[in-house]
Amino acid sequence: MENIIRQTTEFAMHIVRAYVKPGDTVVDATCGNGHDTLALAEMGPEKLYAFDVQEAAVRATTELLEANGYGKSITESRIIVRQLAHEDMADCIDEPVKVVVFNLGYLPGGDKACTTRTETTLAAVQDAMELLRPDGLICITMYSGHAEGKQEKKALLELAEGLDAGKWHTAYISMPNQKHDPPEILLITRKS
Amino acid sequence: MENIIRQTTEFAMHIVRAYVKPGDTVVDATCGNGHDTLALAEMGPEKLYAFDVQEAAVRATTELLEANGYGKSITESRIIVRQLAHEDMADCIDEPVKVVVFNLGYLPGGDKACTTRTETTLAAVQDAMELLRPDGLICITMYSGHAEGKQEKKALLELAEGLDAGKWHTAYISMPNQKHDPPEILLITRKS
Repeated sequence: MENIIRQTTEFAMHIVRAYVKPGDTVVDATCGNGHDTLALAEMGPEKLYAFDVQEAAVRATTELLEANGYGKSITESRIIVRQLAHEDMADCIDEPVKVVVFNLGYLPGGDKACTTRTETTLAAVQDAMELLRPDGLICITMYSGHAEGKQEKKALLELAEGLDAGKWHTAYISMPNQKHDPPEILLITRKS
Repeated sequence: MENIIRQTTEFAMHIVRAYVKPGDTVVDATCGNGHDTLALAEMGPEKLYAFDVQEAAVRATTELLEANGYGKSITESRIIVRQLAHEDMADCIDEPVKVVVFNLGYLPGGDKACTTRTETTLAAVQDAMELLRPDGLICITMYSGHAEGKQEKKALLELAEGLDAGKWHTAYISMPNQKHDPPEILLITRKS
């Protein structure tokens, strides 16, 4: 964990780590190759949901979890990996959650045409806000290096700016001296 | 440590915590009432410097450290609390440092006219950059709710934006939905 701010996904997970306590239910809304899911599993939540719309991502995440000793957790449904679009996650979860992680864009190594889209991402984040416990966190890693990602980031920042400061606290992490649209982080937390 | 992003100083310390390892030298450039200094001491660095231009701050910090069992560390010079302007800290430190923390503005409960100033803050941050080890971190909490603080923040962001991305990585944490100029965080790390 050297120099976490250089590696945006590590930076995001370092923030998430402050929120996950034993007994918590947490969600990886876009599990991709499973790195965030594994990081969440290692934080020891009571229940972990991992979703991705792509079958290849569900397979990669399951394999990564199994290779790291979490096969039994999957068998016992403490970790649930499911092929599902992030905007449909509320259909699958009927309990308040402590953390929801989004890592937007396309699957690394996958089809770049299959990217998260502004409208469905906004719907998914709003669903996550509904599911969120007091003092719970939504952590969104945004990629504005492609056209859809640029629009998605703009829409998410507008959503954040408009949130009632009495009910929500937001933080936006940008990278002032990095060229070429580096990944950025948006944090939304429900006040207790 | 509930909901760290709501409390900017806690958020800053949570990031700093990822950087401080046994053997490290760390600096609180503006120790104020000593809360950051105590948090740094609890991270277990090899050596901790704490500076403040105001005598009342040096006294408050020393008392807070002593009340929390760090009196022996002060006696044995593993913690050095000294009345010194932050722009003079390079006179006092002759070793590479892992972390430098700045908490700008005025001393809580002190004289609000005695605030950090743009020119000296810039000089102090540039000195801190000189002292910084590879993969070391400068963590600056900025307050733009007063006129001098607004100018200071603007100058610091310009400094960050201009840094060579091959040598430095910066991150800026703003609060999109908070009114009344909330505290913000600027992070500068030296690439290894």
